[in-house]
Amino acid sequence: MAKSILHQTEKMPVGEGLGLAEVLGGLPYNADGLIPAIAQQYDSKEVLMMAWMNHAAIEETLKTGRVCYWSRSRQAYWRKGESSGQVQELKEMRFDCDGDTILLLVDQTGPACHTGRRDCFYNVVKGDEVIVDAQPLIDPDELYGKK
Amino acid sequence: MAKSILHQTEKMPVGEGLGLAEVLGGLPYNADGLIPAIAQQYDSKEVLMMAWMNHAAIEETLKTGRVCYWSRSRQAYWRKGESSGQVQELKEMRFDCDGDTILLLVDQTGPACHTGRRDCFYNVVKGDEVIVDAQPLIDPDELYGKK
Repeated sequence: MAKSILHQTEKMPVGEGLGLAEVLGGLPYNADGLIPAIAQQYDSKEVLMMAWMNHAAIEETLKTGRVCYWSRSRQAYWRKGESSGQVQELKEMRFDCDGDTILLLVDQTGPACHTGRRDCFYNVVKGDEVIVDAQPLIDPDELYGKK
Repeated sequence: MAKSILHQTEKMPVGEGLGLAEVLGGLPYNADGLIPAIAQQYDSKEVLMMAWMNHAAIEETLKTGRVCYWSRSRQAYWRKGESSGQVQELKEMRFDCDGDTILLLVDQTGPACHTGRRDCFYNVVKGDEVIVDAQPLIDPDELYGKK
């Protein structure tokens, strides 16, 4: 795995840090240039979803205040809410100790999940089954203008 | 990317699901056989860390009730707390809509982070800097018996 510049902050006291451009240039992006990003609703603390960002998506997100991912399936920038209207406003961006995961504190309008559910983690393990435990807030066909 | 069996649950009503063994066999593991897993403290809802699991680590975690990851740097099973004593008791395991991310609701004893901090996400973006905003609960040298 690539070396991370954020190992330098491990022993720093609270209030010290590094320059943003230097950090973004020194993150351990994977072979596809990506880092996983967890989106958490800033007030309720629900974990909404996980997706991937590249260097430019991180920069755009910080610049615009609206979360932009990189879609691995579409191989394109994915400005959350672009087709569904369900945007994620960025409240805060954090990096973990190894710099290989991003935590986005966001304010999510409506459902975060493409199925129309509030969050993506609706498949829960119960004994020897995996059960759906949340229903869509909105019909996904309505969300994507197919109705 | 591999196809996920969990696309089958997208339109299922609440309470329906699939067999656990079938789901674990049909997850879209990456080329290294891994899936990212987010650990969230079950009551306070803090996002503690993200790490990786393979099929066997998921099974062991469900069987023992203690979280076991796969360490990419050590290429070995990583039973959280094995060397630090800071175990993660599993409260609930969830999969996202695509089955390519796991959410672990856990009860974390002490710090989750190898730096001795409660969680790993202590590097926060402030303007054009990335600043440390949490200090260790425990000296990491003490945590790993080096003192």
